[in-house]
Formats: sequence, structure tokens, C-alpha cells
Amino acid sequence: MSQENKVVVGIIMGSKSDLPVMQDAIEVLKKLGVDFEVSIVSAHRTPERMFDYAKSAAERGLKVIIAGAGGAAHLPGMVASITHLPVIGVPVKSSNSIDGWDSVLSILQMPNGIPVATVALNAAKNAGILSAQILAIGSAELSEKVKAFKAELKEAVEKNALEVEQLKF
Amino acid sequence: MSQENKVVVGIIMGSKSDLPVMQDAIEVLKKLGVDFEVSIVSAHRTPERMFDYAKSAAERGLKVIIAGAGGAAHLPGMVASITHLPVIGVPVKSSNSIDGWDSVLSILQMPNGIPVATVALNAAKNAGILSAQILAIGSAELSEKVKAFKAELKEAVEKNALEVEQLKF
Amino acid sequence: MSQENKVVVGIIMGSKSDLPVMQDAIEVLKKLGVDFEVSIVSAHRTPERMFDYAKSAAERGLKVIIAGAGGAAHLPGMVASITHLPVIGVPVKSSNSIDGWDSVLSILQMPNGIPVATVALNAAKNAGILSAQILAIGSAELSEKVKAFKAELKEAVEKNALEVEQLKF
Amino acid sequence: MSQENKVVVGIIMGSKSDLPVMQDAIEVLKKLGVDFEVSIVSAHRTPERMFDYAKSAAERGLKVIIAGAGGAAHLPGMVASITHLPVIGVPVKSSNSIDGWDSVLSILQMPNGIPVATVALNAAKNAGILSAQILAIGSAELSEKVKAFKAELKEAVEKNALEVEQLKF
Amino acid sequence: MSQENKVVVGIIMGSKSDLPVMQDAIEVLKKLGVDFEVSIVSAHRTPERMFDYAKSAAERGLKVIIAGAGGAAHLPGMVASITHLPVIGVPVKSSNSIDGWDSVLSILQMPNGIPVATVALNAAKNAGILSAQILAIGSAELSEKVKAFKAELKEAVEKNALEVEQLKF
Amino acid sequence: MSQENKVVVGIIMGSKSDLPVMQDAIEVLKKLGVDFEVSIVSAHRTPERMFDYAKSAAERGLKVIIAGAGGAAHLPGMVASITHLPVIGVPVKSSNSIDGWDSVLSILQMPNGIPVATVALNAAKNAGILSAQILAIGSAELSEKVKAFKAELKEAVEKNALEVEQLKF
Amino acid sequence: MSQENKVVVGIIMGSKSDLPVMQDAIEVLKKLGVDFEVSIVSAHRTPERMFDYAKSAAERGLKVIIAGAGGAAHLPGMVASITHLPVIGVPVKSSNSIDGWDSVLSILQMPNGIPVATVALNAAKNAGILSAQILAIGSAELSEKVKAFKAELKEAVEKNALEVEQLKF
Amino acid sequence: MSQENKVVVGIIMGSKSDLPVMQDAIEVLKKLGVDFEVSIVSAHRTPERMFDYAKSAAERGLKVIIAGAGGAAHLPGMVASITHLPVIGVPVKSSNSIDGWDSVLSILQMPNGIPVATVALNAAKNAGILSAQILAIGSAELSEKVKAFKAELKEAVEKNALEVEQLKF
Repeated sequence: MSQENKVVVGIIMGSKSDLPVMQDAIEVLKKLGVDFEVSIVSAHRTPERMFDYAKSAAERGLKVIIAGAGGAAHLPGMVASITHLPVIGVPVKSSNSIDGWDSVLSILQMPNGIPVATVALNAAKNAGILSAQILAIGSAELSEKVKAFKAELKEAVEKNALEVEQLKF
Repeated sequence: MSQENKVVVGIIMGSKSDLPVMQDAIEVLKKLGVDFEVSIVSAHRTPERMFDYAKSAAERGLKVIIAGAGGAAHLPGMVASITHLPVIGVPVKSSNSIDGWDSVLSILQMPNGIPVATVALNAAKNAGILSAQILAIGSAELSEKVKAFKAELKEAVEKNALEVEQLKF
Repeated sequence: MSQENKVVVGIIMGSKSDLPVMQDAIEVLKKLGVDFEVSIVSAHRTPERMFDYAKSAAERGLKVIIAGAGGAAHLPGMVASITHLPVIGVPVKSSNSIDGWDSVLSILQMPNGIPVATVALNAAKNAGILSAQILAIGSAELSEKVKAFKAELKEAVEKNALEVEQLKF
Repeated sequence: MSQENKVVVGIIMGSKSDLPVMQDAIEVLKKLGVDFEVSIVSAHRTPERMFDYAKSAAERGLKVIIAGAGGAAHLPGMVASITHLPVIGVPVKSSNSIDGWDSVLSILQMPNGIPVATVALNAAKNAGILSAQILAIGSAELSEKVKAFKAELKEAVEKNALEVEQLKF
Repeated sequence: MSQENKVVVGIIMGSKSDLPVMQDAIEVLKKLGVDFEVSIVSAHRTPERMFDYAKSAAERGLKVIIAGAGGAAHLPGMVASITHLPVIGVPVKSSNSIDGWDSVLSILQMPNGIPVATVALNAAKNAGILSAQILAIGSAELSEKVKAFKAELKEAVEKNALEVEQLKF
Repeated sequence: MSQENKVVVGIIMGSKSDLPVMQDAIEVLKKLGVDFEVSIVSAHRTPERMFDYAKSAAERGLKVIIAGAGGAAHLPGMVASITHLPVIGVPVKSSNSIDGWDSVLSILQMPNGIPVATVALNAAKNAGILSAQILAIGSAELSEKVKAFKAELKEAVEKNALEVEQLKF
Repeated sequence: MSQENKVVVGIIMGSKSDLPVMQDAIEVLKKLGVDFEVSIVSAHRTPERMFDYAKSAAERGLKVIIAGAGGAAHLPGMVASITHLPVIGVPVKSSNSIDGWDSVLSILQMPNGIPVATVALNAAKNAGILSAQILAIGSAELSEKVKAFKAELKEAVEKNALEVEQLKF
Repeated sequence: MSQENKVVVGIIMGSKSDLPVMQDAIEVLKKLGVDFEVSIVSAHRTPERMFDYAKSAAERGLKVIIAGAGGAAHLPGMVASITHLPVIGVPVKSSNSIDGWDSVLSILQMPNGIPVATVALNAAKNAGILSAQILAIGSAELSEKVKAFKAELKEAVEKNALEVEQLKF
């Protein structure tokens, strides 16, 4: 499977302060063996950089882009407007956000024609998993890894369930 | 390209009353030449059917599932919990919804481990485009169609711009 | 009264992290002498387990189910879709929740046909009391306990009132 | 089963203008063969009447109370504070409501000790079904009716699904 | 002025935990020389007590009632439904509140016929001032005190303004 | 009673378009025999006029001011900042309002020191009743009228209740 | 005054469907004698066009840009990120908006460094006035026109006030 | 350039407690070499002072006013109603605010005729930058400083990007 040998997922975020949240996407892609790159691309402070990144993404071999941003979060939508690749948006509850509502609505409510695949507030982990599910369409190997990952989730719950069922209330 | 010969996108919705909204996904997939199937699957009124649909989706050859629902919209998230395929959720502003907030939040705010690729309220068209973008990763032909689709959007805006610029205010 | 001899209330929650909130339901049922069981059942990470739990609940003798979950909280509604028993939903303000709004709306706003008896955010205590009120319809003994419980609430307020009325401002 | 012979569910509402919404509870109880009474009881305009209604409800043989109200909707919570019977609250999106949020929050967010089993905005039908589910705990006959009702819901969806699947898109 | 010789303002709250917030009303009434009483009256846990309090308020010589409560806050509205005295409602952001929205809406959104004079979230101080303004209609002495109080507010701002204007930035 | 002989309530609103909503205050004051005046005073378009109105209100014999406004509704709060009379604020759901939330919050959330007695969205009728309740503190005659008004509300509900109880469902 | 001889205000909007709302900016600028241009520029459908427009705006002699957009409204913020001119954002309540909240938050909540001067929902008229106020800093003539405009607003209110004061209630 | 020799920006705030937030406007104006004054002006506690400040602002040579306030924030809008200068409003998330929503809506939602250029919650820095952008229309020197400021923002992001790209994940 080719996507294990080269970078196929681009993880970008509007500010270095988003990194602790976006780290969860990094961890899950490492665990699933999907190659990725990470950078800071600000739609508002580096619009040309954002433009170039989005424009060149497909040519550079990226298959999926994960973009995290907070407040009036324009990065995921603007990247989606420039590339034809699927873009996954992570609304970040940044310090300048009104409880996350601005981040969520400015990523989710894209106009007809330019979708952003939005995940839950701060849910970079889910963005990572979703990118793997998308790539797994073309890779039996990655598909098995995604299934195994879901099986682990299930086992963890079942283990917790057993523990709780033993508790003496 | 194989996805033009068989059904690769499953479009489901919680109620027949969601069909007018979900029709936009159907139209865009027809335009892009992506084969799809359409059905009604209610998480709440037909939980077994939902289970079977999600469980068999990958085996039946589906690559992506688009699920629309309103109110306490559990269909996209429950399908995502059962299949390993990417699931695109369309929050529908149904008659029993509180201005769409319930539909949006119960699709978007999935827990870590089980993402739903959520699009804007009632944005079934974007769900269709997103599914095409995802499938286009493995198809140069579909990739060209997605690019052409985006070019059309651009031309339509430019045509409108020209018209507006001629207006005498 | 038969429900004191066997488990009649099933308390489930989507994640072990919900236990501190759900503990309040446990305490009040112990106080009222209603037998219960506690487990972890995740709609999203263990959908089959959730299915089996809900499907077998009535046969196993349960009369009422209390289900707590946070974020896009599908557990109460999905259990209600599978069983014909009354299901009480507790919206949990979990760490991944947008101030609890997602938890509340995805439990409360169930479609016509499948009710969930929703209580206030984090109000597991009220879920426990409500289950006792429901069971008390068929038990004069439990009915007396519920009345005594309400009398205690009243006395506690009256005691506080007396104290405050003595305060020198 | 006794509840088919006498009134076991009291349906009350804060204003006559709530009747079109509350009618759905009436219809479903008639369908399920549960005897009920209907009246207008305003917490704010007839507080004594509300008090008397709630105080005498159990003595008069009621088992469950369904209370609908809009705006600063105090009826369900106040009735729940006076009786020990389970009270089901229906938030009504009345003309003086702010999109229903006031109705929902003033019914749902009851303090610890006094639960109201809240259903979705305007979901009087679900209030009726929930009352039947509660009464069905003590009645095998009503239990069968509830199961049959759920089966009908399922069949209606399956019929719609078949129709939609035949559609030529 | 008669209101300085006897209790004319009743300050009540739904729970002892509301006292720290309601203390601000107490302080301002002491400062303005308005006699008051303080007690705990829970609409939900002591409905009869609430009834008696509201029913007897005018006879006992009260002129204005200040009622604070949180969550599904029914105390101000229920008291207003029973007495003909003006009732000032203080929405309290209690621990079981959804960011205060429930407290605000269940006090503010009273139906036509039964007003509650609602002040800002946690603004017990303003409730105290408002009660003094109301009583000052019939008392030239209290009227002067209210004016002096406003003059003090003005002077405090002017003093702060002077200080800030001297700052070296 | 003096307030029947001269104008004691000033009803103002930010725009002539608020008149249909504010009319309800007018009707109820006529019914209760309280003399009032009506005018348009815009905080934003006629700030001096607003200033003069508020400044002279007490001297002109007004006892209570009812101020209605929509959107960023500053009229009630600004008038309250200038006069020491009690000011009742009516949030109007004007055409430029975001579902009324802006009107409600900019009237309700006044800072410490300057209360506005806020009533429900569009609830000019309640503003009228509240002003009468306030004036009734100093008038046994008006007090009786307020009580009679509340009795009428009760009778209307009881009449409706009787009608509904006769209905054949 | 130079700004009457050449175009100094650029009015752009994301879609032709925003024109009826944005027309109010056009009317007020015509009234105030400020030269403007109007066009359609979609951040999402024509990102290059948006880039070029913003990049060349200052060179082409524009002094202020008014940008209107709805839903996930990125146009005002993206233009502000590219030009150093002041950008006035008009949140449009478009058909795909969640009651306007998405439009408001994605324009208002810009990160530190890149302000957008946001006006009220649909308030294109205010955007026009604000642009004139900004340009009036450098033009005594325009300054007088703005003052005259405000005087007209005042007179219109005073005329309405007189009419209402004559009304017989 | 004249604005460096005399005060052209007035920074005011409703309370001294707003100073830590408003400090960001001060810092950025110092950095950009724009002369400013700072004071406390409370619309509610010092209405005359507010009136005088706004009335005299233009005469005293101010070109732009930055006004910050929280809760029912009337200062920016009232100042805008009195002066013809552009007013930039900073919604402050003060301790008495409901998560900032009241501050935002009572500044943003101004009626037609009286705009306030609103920036994000607590975004005093952006208010400072916006005032500089406005003044830069008439000053080539300030215009260069604003461009340099934006270039710095870009460089900071690029530096962070480089750092993140070197990280070993």
C-alpha cells in the first residue's frame, strides 16, 4: 500500500497554540501507521502561505488534509475552497473563542459546493481516525488496522464494564 | 473506474420526510457519475434494520455512507459505530427540531473513537460532494470531475459578478 | 414488594468517566431500597453490547432503565428504541461536551414514537428518584418511601430556613 | 388490568392554547386504551387549582400526570413538587416562547429531589407513549399494546423504505 | 418614613446555597435603611411553605418581595402568581444551572398576567436597589437616599477615571 | 387616589414600529385606571431627547417608566441610569433582532447599581401590570383593582378548564 | 473632496443572493455622495478572485471595503487578512444560516491581528454609514453630510414622537 | 503625519475592571505610534460624563473612539449615537456577563443609522489595529506601519511553522 511509504495526510493548524489539541490526530495516525506532515498555516496571518499549501497539496501527494482552528476559524473552509482534496475540520476551543460556538459554526456551516468534513469540538483524534477511514477505502491493510482500532475501543469498554459490574455499591 | 459500475455510496435518512433535503445529495452524485443507493433507515424506529444496514455496508461494496437525520439525530453516529466506512452526517432541520441545533449537535459531537464527517445544516449537496472527493482519491477520472465541478461553481460566481458589476445603482 | 428482592432498575452509562455523576442515582436507589445493577454500555464503542443489553432488559426482569451519557449522547435514545421499558436519560456534562447543550439535546429531542424521560443536566439523583416514583405505582411500600423522601427534603429546607431566619444581618 | 376501567393518566396544560399540541397525547392514549382525563390548570393564573389538582391526584386514582406548558413553564415542576406521582413534562413552543428554549429549560432543569420526566419540545405524543410504558410495568396487556405500537412504527418505516428504494432517481 | 420602622421587603431564596449571591441585596438594603426579612422558601421542596409565604406577605406588611433561585427557577414566578405585591426575581447561576440560561429564562419569561421584575444574573444588589426605588415612590426620605446612592456610584467612577487618566502608558 | 388624576406612568419606546407591541401596556393601564403618557424616545437617534425625558420624569410627576426597545436595546438602561424612578424594560422582538436574544440581554444584564425591571420578550402587558402593582403599594384602591384583575385571569382559566373537561375526546 | 470623484468604497458580497440585503449600503452611500463599486466575490467559490480583489484594492484607490456574507462567512475576514485597508463585515442571514449566528460569529470573532469592523446582522445600511464616518475623518464636506444624516434620523423620530403623543388611547 | 503629534484616538471603558482587557489596545497603538488618551466613562453610572465625552470628542481633535464594556454594554452604542466619529466597540467578558453573549449582542446589534464597528470578544488589540487602519487612510506613514505590523504577524507564524515542521512526532 503506497500511503504507508509517503506522506498522505497534511495536518495544519492556525496557530502553534492549537498544537496540544491537534496532537491527538498525530498520535492516532502514528498508531495506525499513516504517514503525515504537520505545520502551522494561518488563513489570516499568512494567507499566501495558506493558498500555496492548499494549491500544492494534491501535487505533493497529499490525499487528505486535517485543518484545526479556533474562533472565526477560516482555515479549513479556505483550504477546502482551493484544493479538491477532502478537508477535515477540527474546531478548536481556543482562548479567544466564545465557548467554542464560533469555532464550530465557522467550520461547519460551509456554503453549498465546498464541504468541510467537520468533527466535534477539539476532536483531533476523530479527525485522525476519519482520515484513516477515508484512506482505508483504497487499502485493505489500513482497513484491517481501522477495524482493529475499533475492536480495541470495544475491549476497553468491556473491561471497564466488567470492573464496574464487580463494584460493591 | 470501478465506482461507476456499482453502488459505492449509500444514502440513508431517518424518515421519508427528510427526502426533499437529501435529494440534493442524489442530484450531485448523479451529476458526478457516482453510483448510489437510497433508503430509509431509522435508528429509533428500525434499530435492527439500521444495525443490519451498517453491518453489511462494506460487504455489499459500499465505500461511503451519507446519513441524514433531524432532532436527536442518532442515525449517522450509530451507523459510524457499527461500520468502519467513513460516514458523512447531514443534520436535517426537521419540523421537530429546535432551529436545527439538536440535529447539528447530536451528529457533530461524537465521542473520541467514532467520527462522523458532519456537514452544514441541510447541506446534503455538500455531503454528496464530500463523498465524491473521498472516492476521487482512488480515481483520476472522478478527481477530474470534482475539479470540473469546482470550476463550474467559480464560473457561475464570475458570471454573476459580471452581471452585478454592470448594474446601474 | 417484589422489586425489593430482585434487580428492577438497570443503571448504565456510556463511559466509566460518567460514574461520578451517575453515582447519585446509585445512592438514592440504595436509600429507597430499590435493587439495581450498574454497568458500562457504550452505544458507539460497543453497539452490539448495547443492543443485547436493551433487548434482554425486560426478560431479565428490569422494569426501568437509567442511561447516562454525554456529548452526542445516543445511549438513552438507542436503548429506548430497542426496549419497550421506560428509559430515563441523564445528560452528562462530560469533558467533550459544549457546556452540556449537546448532551441535553441529543437525549431530549427524540422523535415521535420513542420517548426518553429526560432529567436535568447531571441530575442522576433525579433519575433515581423518578425510577422509584415509577416503580412506586405498583408498590404501596415504595410509595411510602418516596413520600418520606420528599418529607425529608422539606424538613431540610425548613431547618435551613430557621437557621437563616436567626441570622443577624 | 384496572387502568383500562378508570382514569389513570391526568393530562393538564397551562392554557387552552396548548390543546392542539397536547392533543397528540390524547390520541395515543386512546389508541393504546389507557383512560385519561384532560383539563386546564395554570400554575400562574390558578395556583390554588394547581395545588388542589396535584394534591388530590393520587387519591383520585391517577397514576401518572402529563403536564404541558410554554414560556416560563412552571406547571410540570410545581405539580411534581406537590405529588409523589411521576410527572411527564411537555415543553410547548407557545407564542410567547423564545424559540422554545424557555419552555424546555424551565421544565427540564429541575433541582435535585424533584424530577420531571421531560420529553422533546411539543412532543405530547411521546408523553402519552411514556405514560403507557410506565403503566405497562404493571400490566402485561398494556405491555403487549406498547410492543405492538413499536412494531407498527417499524412497519411504517419499512414500508416507506421499500417505496423509496423503488424510486427512480 | 414608615418603612424604616417595620419590615417592608421580604428576601427569599430557593436554597441556602443561594445566600452568598443574595447577600448583596441584604447589604444594599441595610445601606439604604430599608427594613427586610430573609428566609429560605423552596417552591419545589416546600410548596406549601411557599404558598403560605406568598399568601400572607401583604397582610404581614411586606410591600415588595425579592426572590432568588437557580436552574428551573420557579420561586419568583410562583410567588408572583399568589401575591399581588410586586416580585423582583434574581436568576442565580447555581451549580446545577446551564451557564445561567435556565435561571434567567424560567424567571423572565412569565406569561401575560403575572409579571416578575427580573434583574441580571446574580444581580441581587440590583434587586435591592430596585426594591428601594419602588418604595421611594412613597417616601421622600428614601428617594433622597436612592439619589445619594447613585451619586456615590458616579463619584466612584469619576475617581477611577482620574486615576486612570494619570496613568503613564 | 392621586395617581388617577394625573399621569404617573410614562410609556416610551425606541421606534414607532414598537407601538403594536407596547399597545398591550396601554390597554392594561386603561383597564386598571392608571393615567399614563406615551411617546417615542430613541436612545440612539435622539440621545438628548432621551436625556431630557429621563431627567425631567420625576419632576413632571411620573412615578414609573415603562421603556420598550429591540436589538441592542439601550433605552431602558439609559433611562434608568439618569432617573432614580423604577424603570420597567420590555424587550421587543423587532425585525432587526436575532430572535429576541439581543433585546433581552441588552435590557436585562444591567451592571450593579442600575437595575432595570425586565419583563418577558414582547410582554408589554406584564410591564403595565407590574407598574400598577408598584403604584398599588401606595393606593388601596389600585390594589383592589390589581387583585380583581388577577381574579379575572383565574376565572378565565377556570372557564376554559370547564369547557375542555366537557370535551369528548 | 476627492472621494466624490473616484471609487473609494468597494462593496462585495459572497453571493448574488446577498444583494437585496447589501442594497442598503448602496442606497446610503448614494445619499451621502460617496463613490463605490459593487461586485460578487466568493471566498469559497472564487478564492483567487477574492485574493486578487483584496490584494489590488488599495492600489486601485479603494479606502474602505464593505463585505457581506452568510453562513460560515469567510469573505470579510479573508479580505481583511490580505489588505491593510479597514474592512467592514456585514453578517447576512442567508437561507443556509442557523438563525444568523454562524454569519455573526464567523465575521466577528477574528483572531488578534486581523480585525473586521462588524455591524449587526443584515445591517448593510450601517456598514455604509460607518464607511462614510471613516472617510469623513479626512473630508470636512463628508463630515457635514454625516452630521446632516444623523440630524435627519433625529427629526424622523421627533416627528413620529409628535404623532404618537397626539394619539388618543 | 499629524496624528503622531496629538491625541487622535480616545480609549474609554465602562469600568476600571475593564482595563486589563483594554490594555491590549493601548499596547498596539504605542507600537504603531498613534497618540491616544485613556479614561473611564460609564454610560450607566456617569451618563452626563459620557454625554460630554462623546459630544466634545470631535472638537477636542479625536478621530476615532474605542469603547469597551461588558454585560448590557451600552457605552459604545451611546457614544456612537452622540458623536459622528467612527466608534469601535470592544465587548468585554466581564464577571457579570453571561459568557460574553450579552456584551457582544448589546454592542453589535445597533439599529439602522447608528453603527458601532464591533470587534471580537475581549479583542481590544484588534480595536487598536482597526483604529490605526482607519487613520492610515490619511497617512502614508501610518499605512506603512500597519503593513509592517501585518508582515510581523506573518513572520511570527512562519517562524512557528518552521519550528513545528522540525518537530519529531
